[in-house]
Amino acid sequence: MNIKQIAKQAGVSVATVSRVLNHPESVAPETKEKIERIMQEAEYTPNWFARGLNFNKTKTIGLMIPHILNPANMEIVKGVEDVARQKDYITFMCNVENDPEKERQYAESLIHRKVDGIILISSHLEADEIENIYSQGVPVVMIGENKGKPNVPVVRTNCQQAIFKAVNYLMEVGYRKIAILYGKTPELENKRKIEGYEQALAKEGIERNPAYIIATENNIEGGYLGAKRFIEMQERPEVILATSDLIAFGVMDAMKDHNIRMPEEISIIGFDNIRMSNMVDPKLTTIEKPLHKMGVVGARLLFDMIEDADQKNQAYLELHRSKEIELQSKIKIRKSCGHTERLQEMFRG
Amino acid sequence: MNIKQIAKQAGVSVATVSRVLNHPESVAPETKEKIERIMQEAEYTPNWFARGLNFNKTKTIGLMIPHILNPANMEIVKGVEDVARQKDYITFMCNVENDPEKERQYAESLIHRKVDGIILISSHLEADEIENIYSQGVPVVMIGENKGKPNVPVVRTNCQQAIFKAVNYLMEVGYRKIAILYGKTPELENKRKIEGYEQALAKEGIERNPAYIIATENNIEGGYLGAKRFIEMQERPEVILATSDLIAFGVMDAMKDHNIRMPEEISIIGFDNIRMSNMVDPKLTTIEKPLHKMGVVGARLLFDMIEDADQKNQAYLELHRSKEIELQSKIKIRKSCGHTERLQEMFRG
Repeated sequence: MNIKQIAKQAGVSVATVSRVLNHPESVAPETKEKIERIMQEAEYTPNWFARGLNFNKTKTIGLMIPHILNPANMEIVKGVEDVARQKDYITFMCNVENDPEKERQYAESLIHRKVDGIILISSHLEADEIENIYSQGVPVVMIGENKGKPNVPVVRTNCQQAIFKAVNYLMEVGYRKIAILYGKTPELENKRKIEGYEQALAKEGIERNPAYIIATENNIEGGYLGAKRFIEMQERPEVILATSDLIAFGVMDAMKDHNIRMPEEISIIGFDNIRMSNMVDPKLTTIEKPLHKMGVVGARLLFDMIEDADQKNQAYLELHRSKEIELQSKIKIRKSCGHTERLQEMFRG
Repeated sequence: MNIKQIAKQAGVSVATVSRVLNHPESVAPETKEKIERIMQEAEYTPNWFARGLNFNKTKTIGLMIPHILNPANMEIVKGVEDVARQKDYITFMCNVENDPEKERQYAESLIHRKVDGIILISSHLEADEIENIYSQGVPVVMIGENKGKPNVPVVRTNCQQAIFKAVNYLMEVGYRKIAILYGKTPELENKRKIEGYEQALAKEGIERNPAYIIATENNIEGGYLGAKRFIEMQERPEVILATSDLIAFGVMDAMKDHNIRMPEEISIIGFDNIRMSNMVDPKLTTIEKPLHKMGVVGARLLFDMIEDADQKNQAYLELHRSKEIELQSKIKIRKSCGHTERLQEMFRG
């Protein structure tokens, strides 16, 4: 709804609506209340900060975070903020808690407040919702696996391939009973990880054991509870592949509580390589996701787009939109799984 | 600067300025540019969302975080967000990185964007800056030790007392060479912690050894580097009190790299009791700071103030402003320090 429509609905002139916004003391209280009510109902935002007005830089960006208690997310965030700080921008961080409704609410609120751009991490927004943000002149960059596949740039790692390679490695060094304990969130990323796991087993002709594929909450407690289910099995897996380091930490805690030696009785491999994965005992073997770098690359892309939008470089903008940058993961071998000395004891000794 | 002053400076009528804001297409380009330039220079914000207009709820709050890579902060943040979510509010999180200038920039930006209230964690803002936020109709709550002592409510733990009690406990069970490895940030909190440490030693007539008081970065790397200095000493401390769990983790890592057994050769005690402190090996003895609760209590206070401000309950508002809520800390004894079995070996065995 624009100012003309509000005036029409209120049965007043545009000038009166304008006066309500700018010097309300000059408007009769009754008229003022009526116009305000219509504005509120229509969620009308005066367009004073609109890009066309040349007030076009607010020097702020918005950043959607799937969950703030997962350090993996915060390492991506740190990468974004390091770039934003160089550009003298401030970042409004939004804790989505994997709730699509919350994410929508945040997106609206950020647009309403005229941020110069938005970065989505593992977004739940639909393609048309993201297209809608972009069409309002707000550049968008996505980091990670995202629900929508709109025409905006993406920075990601190939989770499927990373797990495929990791499972291959596990089979090469002698493991056969390989279980995967995967987080229920973020949904898409974990779907890819399971695909990678299943493909690797299929390639070696190892039959997929459904009992070895367990879903859990993506946190330490989730890892603990999931691990207990493996511990209770008649035929325990030799190695548990956790889809996040947090889940792996919970698994390790459960193993200690049940006096199960790692990696001798059960090996553990995580995903992310967060700072703490090197601090637990045994040190965690994990798939390194270039978290900080993903944040840096995503933010640089966003600032390129903000600058191109500012300079009305439509051609460059279109070029950015089709970018899909894939960063490589690699396996960090530590004591919890696949470490040479232990492997010799376990499989070759 | 208000709309009248802008009109005066531009040599036009208030109505013309108003037209630039609301239907710029009706204003001559030259005039429009002139007025826009003056607005930009004056950083003029049209007062369309002002509280007096009854558009007075934006359903958003701002939250200043000292540093996002310290999980202790994020546990406070989670407490705030749990309350905000119940109230159907969204939170704009701001990563201050212990930079007063950044915090000022964020505060201005949040006020400009009409948040309903602001929570400051370990703020660097001066009392008059905070008073200035409050006087613009934006309720403020402070969590932790803050630089300014303005007339706004505070939720805190008594860090000084917590360390005092912890050091007393350490002396009771037999430790005499007690070192403190403290974070350079947040500054005020760590100042209080050192005071508590020195008071406890003084009370028992133990001379303060300046070599045992070392400052470091408040993160894992800082703990590692600080610990190395203790390790190199001719007369090593019996116990290292780290002012955060992150620092303690770094200390533990250094001990492992130097094959120093914990707690037998050097005991470690941390501060915060973050989720991971129970996951490291040996499990970390630490001073539990009620992080999540601090966030919950702080957020509840803020929402009480927002509601009272809305209902113009000036008397209630004043009542809130003088509140200082102190939550209790307690020692969590685990294996890294003060655990009965180990103590018997070490001091009574």
